[in-house]
Amino acid sequence: MSLKIAFQGERGAFSEQAAVQLLGSRIELIPCDSFDKCFTAVKRGRAEACLVPIENTLAGSIHRNFDLLLQHGLSIVGETRVRIEHHLIALQGTRLGDVRRVLSHPMALEQCRRFLEQHPRLESVAEYDTAGSVKLIAESAVADWRDTAAIAGAWAARRYGCAILKRNIEDHAENHTRFWLLSKPQRKGSLSRHRPWERQRGDKTSIVFSTKNIPGALYKCLSVFALRDINLTKIESRPVRGRPFEYFFYVDLLSHVDEERCRNALRHLGEVTDFLRVLGCYKQG
Amino acid sequence: MSLKIAFQGERGAFSEQAAVQLLGSRIELIPCDSFDKCFTAVKRGRAEACLVPIENTLAGSIHRNFDLLLQHGLSIVGETRVRIEHHLIALQGTRLGDVRRVLSHPMALEQCRRFLEQHPRLESVAEYDTAGSVKLIAESAVADWRDTAAIAGAWAARRYGCAILKRNIEDHAENHTRFWLLSKPQRKGSLSRHRPWERQRGDKTSIVFSTKNIPGALYKCLSVFALRDINLTKIESRPVRGRPFEYFFYVDLLSHVDEERCRNALRHLGEVTDFLRVLGCYKQG
Repeated sequence: MSLKIAFQGERGAFSEQAAVQLLGSRIELIPCDSFDKCFTAVKRGRAEACLVPIENTLAGSIHRNFDLLLQHGLSIVGETRVRIEHHLIALQGTRLGDVRRVLSHPMALEQCRRFLEQHPRLESVAEYDTAGSVKLIAESAVADWRDTAAIAGAWAARRYGCAILKRNIEDHAENHTRFWLLSKPQRKGSLSRHRPWERQRGDKTSIVFSTKNIPGALYKCLSVFALRDINLTKIESRPVRGRPFEYFFYVDLLSHVDEERCRNALRHLGEVTDFLRVLGCYKQG
Repeated sequence: MSLKIAFQGERGAFSEQAAVQLLGSRIELIPCDSFDKCFTAVKRGRAEACLVPIENTLAGSIHRNFDLLLQHGLSIVGETRVRIEHHLIALQGTRLGDVRRVLSHPMALEQCRRFLEQHPRLESVAEYDTAGSVKLIAESAVADWRDTAAIAGAWAARRYGCAILKRNIEDHAENHTRFWLLSKPQRKGSLSRHRPWERQRGDKTSIVFSTKNIPGALYKCLSVFALRDINLTKIESRPVRGRPFEYFFYVDLLSHVDEERCRNALRHLGEVTDFLRVLGCYKQG
């Protein structure tokens, strides 16, 4: 029985690529049409884990997925990063000169603006997602889709048997997305051969905490790590809904949650915060 | 001569609403089809300032606009927040029962998922943006667009003379976008009656700095504010491109940049950082 992994989007999406990169190709991928559905698939046992994007170098942190993580009480069990490369993709045999329309998600079209401006005869058409645009072209029965291309990743071209007409048409090469693998919190001693992440020792811990917005409150919180030489790799504040001047802080730190200095730091942090939750301990990707 | 303000999107966009909220209705709005073009409009003097979204409570910080801010060397001169409320909008006289298709930006469609699931006869169609979808319906010469609605803000309905069929169809009420007003750095003593923000004293300063990722580096940086009782309202880390383990930190603090404790703190911060830039001092919105 292969490992079932839920992801948001169509087959061939960047999330699918991330899942295979992290877990190998012998997994069963379960496409979901929303992030909420990825989380409930795990919660209800239809998938062992889900893989969701949480941060992009151009677009920032996807707060919605942090909210869903807290709401559903899943744990982070893995991490990986994918470079977002946009290619112009069409049916096999299509020539660049034949293309008149380009389909993709508005954000991908926006990220390929320079290419589209250099080819003014190409009409941009908004679609739901990148891989879905390739699917639309590949699976359509209409013969004249030879005038249509999609902007998506190489994974989508391969998945739907399409050709890449032009590679790397993105404006900015520095476009990476970070994904988290999320699963139900593991019970101690309940190791499963189906959950490969349980065999890996984590070296990174993600936490969220809140504190009153009094001068120096965050400084006090960070002292618990600085005093113990624990390195942070991310910090982000976010206003707490309906409580003006109070903030959540999302912090990633380089230490196993069971390491002594980390246990001490988190106990210390508990003394100076209103709310503290460990989101997961996992191998840095 | 009215003040020219550039913004990204179609007339009726949430950015237009934000501009009027911040500067009143006697401004001349200049729609641009990309964020880059907003920045260059200001740089080349075609607009006095531009208004761009920088952070959304669900989608996170729009890093791309932080990049453009650094790249073009503009200054933040104002701030405002808009609650993102999604309505179902159609031609005057359309009844909800007539609607078969709903156009909008994929993110807006996603944010109204519950409503769309409760109305399975409505086909969702991806479009470039929210206000643009209303414009498409309002300005189309095709008569049978009475079966089509758009998801957008009230501002767009008003702008294109359309009717709101159903209000607040968004899943999450807590959806706010924060906007910055950006202008060329002001020269001391060159006050202009055309730039109303120069008459307001700022109470918030935004900075960006980078530091080596050594344990405690950020802690040391934040000490310069904690020691002087300067309150922070935002902190966000972001990896520096091509320099692994180095980070930019974006920080907002509640103090005028010329206040003595703030000047001292920034001088102190300069001693412990590799790079430091003041992005602007403005009235908190």
